[in-house]
Amino acid sequence: MFNLTPKEDKFYDYFIDVAKIAYKASNMLVEFLKDLDNSEENLKKLKDIEHEGDKKQHEILEQLNKTFITPFDREDIYVIAKDMDDVIDLIESAASRFVMLNVSNCTKEAEMLSEMIVKCCEELITLMEEFKNMKTSKELPKKIIEINRLEEDGDKVSRKAIMDLFRSDIEVIEVIKWREIYQYLEDTLDACEDLANVVEGVVMKNA
Amino acid sequence: MFNLTPKEDKFYDYFIDVAKIAYKASNMLVEFLKDLDNSEENLKKLKDIEHEGDKKQHEILEQLNKTFITPFDREDIYVIAKDMDDVIDLIESAASRFVMLNVSNCTKEAEMLSEMIVKCCEELITLMEEFKNMKTSKELPKKIIEINRLEEDGDKVSRKAIMDLFRSDIEVIEVIKWREIYQYLEDTLDACEDLANVVEGVVMKNA
Amino acid sequence: MFNLTPKEDKFYDYFIDVAKIAYKASNMLVEFLKDLDNSEENLKKLKDIEHEGDKKQHEILEQLNKTFITPFDREDIYVIAKDMDDVIDLIESAASRFVMLNVSNCTKEAEMLSEMIVKCCEELITLMEEFKNMKTSKELPKKIIEINRLEEDGDKVSRKAIMDLFRSDIEVIEVIKWREIYQYLEDTLDACEDLANVVEGVVMKNA
Repeated sequence: MFNLTPKEDKFYDYFIDVAKIAYKASNMLVEFLKDLDNSEENLKKLKDIEHEGDKKQHEILEQLNKTFITPFDREDIYVIAKDMDDVIDLIESAASRFVMLNVSNCTKEAEMLSEMIVKCCEELITLMEEFKNMKTSKELPKKIIEINRLEEDGDKVSRKAIMDLFRSDIEVIEVIKWREIYQYLEDTLDACEDLANVVEGVVMKNA
Repeated sequence: MFNLTPKEDKFYDYFIDVAKIAYKASNMLVEFLKDLDNSEENLKKLKDIEHEGDKKQHEILEQLNKTFITPFDREDIYVIAKDMDDVIDLIESAASRFVMLNVSNCTKEAEMLSEMIVKCCEELITLMEEFKNMKTSKELPKKIIEINRLEEDGDKVSRKAIMDLFRSDIEVIEVIKWREIYQYLEDTLDACEDLANVVEGVVMKNA
Repeated sequence: MFNLTPKEDKFYDYFIDVAKIAYKASNMLVEFLKDLDNSEENLKKLKDIEHEGDKKQHEILEQLNKTFITPFDREDIYVIAKDMDDVIDLIESAASRFVMLNVSNCTKEAEMLSEMIVKCCEELITLMEEFKNMKTSKELPKKIIEINRLEEDGDKVSRKAIMDLFRSDIEVIEVIKWREIYQYLEDTLDACEDLANVVEGVVMKNA
């Protein structure tokens, strides 16, 4: 096999690159939560990763506009690029809540959710690596199921955390803060699932 | 007339089926609000209906990927299936707030909104039944107008309820809870309207 | 040059018209914030402008369904019309929060954000005027950059305002109200940016 990458295959490489950036961001989120004393500096590092993702997304869109024949529906490439960007943005948004809302401690549930986000992003890398072989890959459907399962588990964790919040006797202002933080963490997992489902749709169409 | 359903007409039947599931969910929401003492068990029933809807949506998407000629734009079928799913999900989400946020009583306005959701879902069934005859149906435009009217009325009810909330002297934690519940009920009506407007767009395109 | 407007060019004129309505709405928002003693009457004026926008959007969609050859992708025209409508709706929603949440004073940051919204809407008019000459316009890319810059600045202002909110010792109920108001103002700027980015995408595709 020659090391020859047809132009249209570049998209799969781009997607792998962005998935790796998302994975890096998710790991930075876990670090962030472990070191809330330095949240402002750590948030800057996370913002840098977000900008890396923005740059890559712009490259995908530019490539898309230069390419006549795409490996699958043009619109789906656009949606995947957009959804990947959403995942990274939401990771940054979740972390930034701690700074914005003046939260200097972390809960066990927020840690659990951030670790689920890491796992989801790890699965996204394999998903994107297998995407090119969508017609034969046996790993691809497993990854989609796994991401859906992680989202469902995350939903249970965040719903339970919110239930406890509204049954505790902590101050109202703390309830408000944590309600918002759990929402962002849950939204991040939702965005991973949305992405996996778009990929599933592309696989179904091209089966 | 023979009992012969061309493949492409199956979509209309699927849409009617999902509208009926949404209607069932909306009725269960009304029941749920009348029996908040057993909210956890009742929520499970609502989740079962939601899963029924998920299954049907998956069937639509599978059918879509197997069908070469669709009765109208492929993309619009996808959006309608997605929007129907959103309506059912939001009904479940609205109910689940009562469990999550530890709310054991219901307000007159929440009851009114849930009854408006039932009416909207009832109209959605007729909308979907008439959809097949979009070129000649006189009922179809009426149903679209009716759903838009219901959403507008619902908006007034929820805005008024929120206004009263922020002018009352109830505890702040209660304000937070009800603010969120009204939002979900309003979002459900919005989702019904979005769906009706997508159908309207399809009708206009195919007039 | 004859005063001859081919049918397909009408879309650009419609977009200019809606951008002007958005600009009118944004100016009304600034007025609204300066005269909160009469918020209910002023909100009605803003609702009238919103309805003007709705009517225009409906005209665009009707035109779209009657036109065989569109100046660019049919789907993109739809998205632009939808995003313009979102901008206007969010301006009204931001103002209506003051009435709903019983807020009778304004903060410096809310004023700043509303003035940024005015500037964004002003840029949107030029953006739409230049849109027709997308292949040669030098102004068009500048406007897109400018709107992105305004959104970024607005994001800093609202994040800072929310940070201050959660570090002040004002009453919790006030924190809730302002958290929601800043969200709506930020969402309005986001919607302007989304619109500019869709236009950028169309320009790239047709370069």
